[in-house]
Amino acid sequence: MKGAVLHGARDVRFEERESPKIVEPTDAVIRLAATCICGSDLWPYRGIATTKGPQAMGHEYCGFVEELGRDVKTVRRGQFVIGSFFASDNTCPHCKAGYQTSCVHRELVGGAQAPYLRVPLADGTLVATPDKPSDDLVPSMLAVSDVLGTGWFAADAANVKPGATVAVVGDGAVGLLAILSAKQMGAGRIIAMSRHPSRRKLAREYGATDVVTERGDDGIARIRDLTKGVGADSVLECVGTAESMAQAIGATRPGGFVSYVGLPHGVTLDGQKLFFTHVHMHGGPAPVRRYLPKLIELVASRAIDPGKVFDLVLPLAEVAEGYRAMDERRAIKTLLRP
Amino acid sequence: MKGAVLHGARDVRFEERESPKIVEPTDAVIRLAATCICGSDLWPYRGIATTKGPQAMGHEYCGFVEELGRDVKTVRRGQFVIGSFFASDNTCPHCKAGYQTSCVHRELVGGAQAPYLRVPLADGTLVATPDKPSDDLVPSMLAVSDVLGTGWFAADAANVKPGATVAVVGDGAVGLLAILSAKQMGAGRIIAMSRHPSRRKLAREYGATDVVTERGDDGIARIRDLTKGVGADSVLECVGTAESMAQAIGATRPGGFVSYVGLPHGVTLDGQKLFFTHVHMHGGPAPVRRYLPKLIELVASRAIDPGKVFDLVLPLAEVAEGYRAMDERRAIKTLLRP
Repeated sequence: MKGAVLHGARDVRFEERESPKIVEPTDAVIRLAATCICGSDLWPYRGIATTKGPQAMGHEYCGFVEELGRDVKTVRRGQFVIGSFFASDNTCPHCKAGYQTSCVHRELVGGAQAPYLRVPLADGTLVATPDKPSDDLVPSMLAVSDVLGTGWFAADAANVKPGATVAVVGDGAVGLLAILSAKQMGAGRIIAMSRHPSRRKLAREYGATDVVTERGDDGIARIRDLTKGVGADSVLECVGTAESMAQAIGATRPGGFVSYVGLPHGVTLDGQKLFFTHVHMHGGPAPVRRYLPKLIELVASRAIDPGKVFDLVLPLAEVAEGYRAMDERRAIKTLLRP
Repeated sequence: MKGAVLHGARDVRFEERESPKIVEPTDAVIRLAATCICGSDLWPYRGIATTKGPQAMGHEYCGFVEELGRDVKTVRRGQFVIGSFFASDNTCPHCKAGYQTSCVHRELVGGAQAPYLRVPLADGTLVATPDKPSDDLVPSMLAVSDVLGTGWFAADAANVKPGATVAVVGDGAVGLLAILSAKQMGAGRIIAMSRHPSRRKLAREYGATDVVTERGDDGIARIRDLTKGVGADSVLECVGTAESMAQAIGATRPGGFVSYVGLPHGVTLDGQKLFFTHVHMHGGPAPVRRYLPKLIELVASRAIDPGKVFDLVLPLAEVAEGYRAMDERRAIKTLLRP
């Protein structure tokens, strides 16, 4: 089969790769209905995260069960399934506590920008949709796999409650779906921090009530203005840089909540400064598995439409253009059709 | 009057100071029934926190209302009152959210190691006991003012729930009263990290079920052993050093809670490391005012005995010996009688 392989900075190729097979008896192989490019794929694409040799790319997936290891019990051949970027057993103490991305047996799922994918720990990792989703629902089902699950975790980890004032730092796909998530959780006011007109439009559609275009200290000052000097109850940091983290902490009221869901790059926190902000902090790799059943239901019932973040759809063979469009911010997120 | 003044490292003197007066119409002056030395007083005493010129010491207090500004409405002359180290209006949005130590009008209360003390914002800051407490209750009432309130916040901020496995880093008075607090909140298991025999004894009396004497990575490994490799649900960091913070984070399960209530000295957190721990973090200067009514009730009803942390009682005139005893760890905490 042919799939996406990163050879170096800005060098993604669509090339022959070995077809995935069952390796462990707990594995599944799925035939992808759709896959996509993640904001986090841009770190190695831009050469910021170093890669050792050619790397099969992609970790977002949904599709049909093609083959099963002999020990898999809960998933059946032909079912439409969704999983997350970390495979997990869903039975260990960390999984039971809802932190499947810290599963004691966790394993990264990789190489999803391809027609077929091997998923380890299939019983713990994969959740089947009630029926085969209609074609127009596939982008939203794909979004559940990572970008919506991560946005949802951002809202949950920042303790978004009905009526709360929420701010979202970052207008990438995760930030936009964090807005959707906060809206679903009943936030009373949602302040999007965004400079890009097309993203601001989608932010409004997903539930943003205010948009702040300023950044850094000016952005913090704007949010303080909008909240009568108090700060937001919940701030969702969906970028992962030192600037975005400082902005998030600075915009939160004492006793408020900051979540962070983007892998931090160059972020260090000063203990004494943090002490006097009085904020709650929580984040990490989103335990998307915890939310899969609920999010699948919300998509299946058409209560939400997270698939709108895919503003570019390409055949898998054009994956290189998909990366370029996201790198240059011409696209929010690229869906790839195998 | 004569009170405690710090002139430089390890140079505390009992000397003549101006008697406090009403300055603002919202002030009260109280006559202290007892005062004490805080673990945090040892930072400037040891020359680690620099002081500008002579500094009147002490911020823990309880006693009788002696004089009132003309705008004070809720406190009456002669009442026995307790307040916290930050005066607060108790009406601003931060106070209403329970974060009185971030009050927009907050003001440090200082110079409490003396017979009399001026307390700003008396209506917001002071809480009267139901009756004049009997003499034997005075140490416990004094503990409410800071050290118990801070230990209580440590347990609350670390989300201690009935049945939870809790670890406490630090066996100073705050750590010991964090154990008492966790016990009151129904913790199922309380692991004290302590090396000192007399402190371990009090830790057990207050509810510790296990004692870990190892520190650093060995201490983390011990806690992991005791929790079948999972880590503790809630870890209360009651010291404020880089080592104690690392120990606290390392001993917490993914999804668990770390609180920190000692002013951090030399603590920096690496964003990416923190990300993968999946812990919740919350702390800051304890909003003791939030807890005063409840803690006064627990002491008045003799449900708890936090005053046991005072293992040295001296006349105020011997304040210098009180500091020495704590500095050399001969005493857990020194109570001073004016």
